[in-house]
Amino acid sequence: MSEDTKVQGTRERLVSTAADLFGRQGLSATGIKQILAGSKAQFSSLYHHFPGGKDQLAAEAIRTAGLGYQQFVEEIWDGAGDLLAGVRSIFDGAAYVLEATDYADACPIATIALEVASTNEDLRLATAEVFESWNRAATVRFVAGGITPSVARELAVALIALLEGAFVLSRAAKSPESMLVAGKTAVAMVERALALVEPHGG
Amino acid sequence: MSEDTKVQGTRERLVSTAADLFGRQGLSATGIKQILAGSKAQFSSLYHHFPGGKDQLAAEAIRTAGLGYQQFVEEIWDGAGDLLAGVRSIFDGAAYVLEATDYADACPIATIALEVASTNEDLRLATAEVFESWNRAATVRFVAGGITPSVARELAVALIALLEGAFVLSRAAKSPESMLVAGKTAVAMVERALALVEPHGG
Repeated sequence: MSEDTKVQGTRERLVSTAADLFGRQGLSATGIKQILAGSKAQFSSLYHHFPGGKDQLAAEAIRTAGLGYQQFVEEIWDGAGDLLAGVRSIFDGAAYVLEATDYADACPIATIALEVASTNEDLRLATAEVFESWNRAATVRFVAGGITPSVARELAVALIALLEGAFVLSRAAKSPESMLVAGKTAVAMVERALALVEPHGG
Repeated sequence: MSEDTKVQGTRERLVSTAADLFGRQGLSATGIKQILAGSKAQFSSLYHHFPGGKDQLAAEAIRTAGLGYQQFVEEIWDGAGDLLAGVRSIFDGAAYVLEATDYADACPIATIALEVASTNEDLRLATAEVFESWNRAATVRFVAGGITPSVARELAVALIALLEGAFVLSRAAKSPESMLVAGKTAVAMVERALALVEPHGG
């Protein structure tokens, strides 16, 4: 039992350390030594858990960090009360975290997504899978709010584009302006879509 | 004269090769050797033109590519006839170029912006300067369309966030969907802002 826990602990530490470093500085800038130091792991542990080396670890870090971020955002969204308050909270929360971490904590997979898009097909597919999962999670919420599936899908795509673009711009400028404007834009966009929803009899 | 031309040619080739590689695969993945091979330059030329080495070359590549992209987009925008057609053309053009280049040619500085945001203050400032220049160029066009400066600034920020986010998502998915939805969203947003502009007597 304690042996299992220890083995699992090392694997999880490798993944979370790698995900943090990839998110902040990217895949190429992050060496194996830095991942091992950050996760207090031996070289042999890395290849025990990830025989495919850095690429296999990166694929798992992308999926784990991407779905972890999705859960985090879904909790904020669903805890906000209604659809509009949820959308507002996501962007306000992102602006808050950016400022609180000196613009280091942002989308956990955007840097790596741009690095690998034209250079590593397996990792590109891992990032695409994560973004598609986010799109589906947002679409489901818009549909639950009475919006038609095709409009809901477009709102989801636009919301995630606004969020991702604002991460790039706010991190570059070290300013929350882009994230706050992106949030205002997303809220207005969803407000208009909701205004077109036909009221159901009750 | 021919000596000058040759010297300038090498410098420009170094900058444009570096900018292309940084845009497609990022700063960290791009080694000096790859830049020299791509620009058919010697190691000594690099340090002759850029005594500060890779970082100095990167700062110039960011500014040159960022302002080059701005000019490219401004020509598309201004050639489109009116403000709405201009906004539509930017996103349609980006979707076209993404598809035509197998999703390799996108924002020339987004990858590097995310890589350096928390790790290289000089290069972060270069990316911030480029994005701010884009913001000002878009704001000027919205103000010329009769939109108040504060709303124009927000439209510019939201437009660039949509564009940047869609580059991340479209490259990851190898699909134009996000870019096309981002364009539709940007056009709708500008349309509503224009509808609120008070008509001037004529």
